[in-house]
Amino acid sequence: MPTLLDAIQHRYSCRQFVAGHAVSTSEMDLLREAGRLAPSAFGLEPWRFITVTGDAERAAIAHACYDQPAAATAAALIVIVARVDALDPDSDYVRAQFEAEARGEDTASIYEAYRAFYRKDGVAAWARGQCHFAAAHMLLQAAHMGLGSCPIGGFDEAALTAVLNIPPGEFTALVIALGHCAYTAPQRMRKDFD
Amino acid sequence: MPTLLDAIQHRYSCRQFVAGHAVSTSEMDLLREAGRLAPSAFGLEPWRFITVTGDAERAAIAHACYDQPAAATAAALIVIVARVDALDPDSDYVRAQFEAEARGEDTASIYEAYRAFYRKDGVAAWARGQCHFAAAHMLLQAAHMGLGSCPIGGFDEAALTAVLNIPPGEFTALVIALGHCAYTAPQRMRKDFD
Repeated sequence: MPTLLDAIQHRYSCRQFVAGHAVSTSEMDLLREAGRLAPSAFGLEPWRFITVTGDAERAAIAHACYDQPAAATAAALIVIVARVDALDPDSDYVRAQFEAEARGEDTASIYEAYRAFYRKDGVAAWARGQCHFAAAHMLLQAAHMGLGSCPIGGFDEAALTAVLNIPPGEFTALVIALGHCAYTAPQRMRKDFD
Repeated sequence: MPTLLDAIQHRYSCRQFVAGHAVSTSEMDLLREAGRLAPSAFGLEPWRFITVTGDAERAAIAHACYDQPAAATAAALIVIVARVDALDPDSDYVRAQFEAEARGEDTASIYEAYRAFYRKDGVAAWARGQCHFAAAHMLLQAAHMGLGSCPIGGFDEAALTAVLNIPPGEFTALVIALGHCAYTAPQRMRKDFD
């Protein structure tokens, strides 16, 4: 059984996936579970995951990703959508999350801390950052299962909004391309440890 | 040997660490290694990790984190610093990263893609997001080793800049508190899978 550092070392941003090699439903479920268990400040989980496996929708999303080969050849895509309007301290969403997290205890102190932290003009950037936690979990889970993956941050946001019917108050943070990598990862390049 | 999903399930944002229970040098090295191997768009690794184990510096950083118990009781802190000015397409940093990544091949195509992607007014938010990839790796590596951790995003940025001598063109993205958790994690709360 591979360990965490194995997954970390095997994870690689694959740019080309094998045609016709699907990601199974159980693999997709594990990927979403890994993302669902990611950390988030105040336990707000400011994300939604959209799973895309149908050919037509995949093609439309790949096109919105400027036809990058990773998106165009992926067997499946997971779109990580950041929730922004839901994070307003007075939203029903925040109340539900805080009440669940408080487990019946008083929510006054977490509300006080959150109101001090929350800035309307910074919340979108903050939600985007949090979505990267979920993405990192999914990318490692993919590597752990022997799947290739590629996080895609370069896309036409308006086009994705239209294809996926993303409502106002939410936006696409990242697209994760998934599949079986068509080639062997080259030796990893990184800055030195020091 | 615990697997990835074990680490994902055991990871928990601990708010209080055991006093006097240090994180070893080899554990710190593995945490930094996990962060170093995180993905980044264009392979730019737009981060620096500052390891803090000395009492006086830890206390100063904890104070800049509004004396949150997780920071105040942590045995060690890793500060993840986002690099912004270094990401200018014409910087020496970008050239060095692209030349390493190209492994002797021509860098014209990656430069072309990066110049099309780069926006000066969005690069700080982008670097912040990327730093969350590195943070997620470290948090999972901590869980994998049986260490407690807590990502801290609420801090006085100017105070941290002063304490850590962070130069212009960089900023603190996240502080990771590390140690041995002083209590047992409660049952996890999350939105339903669906």
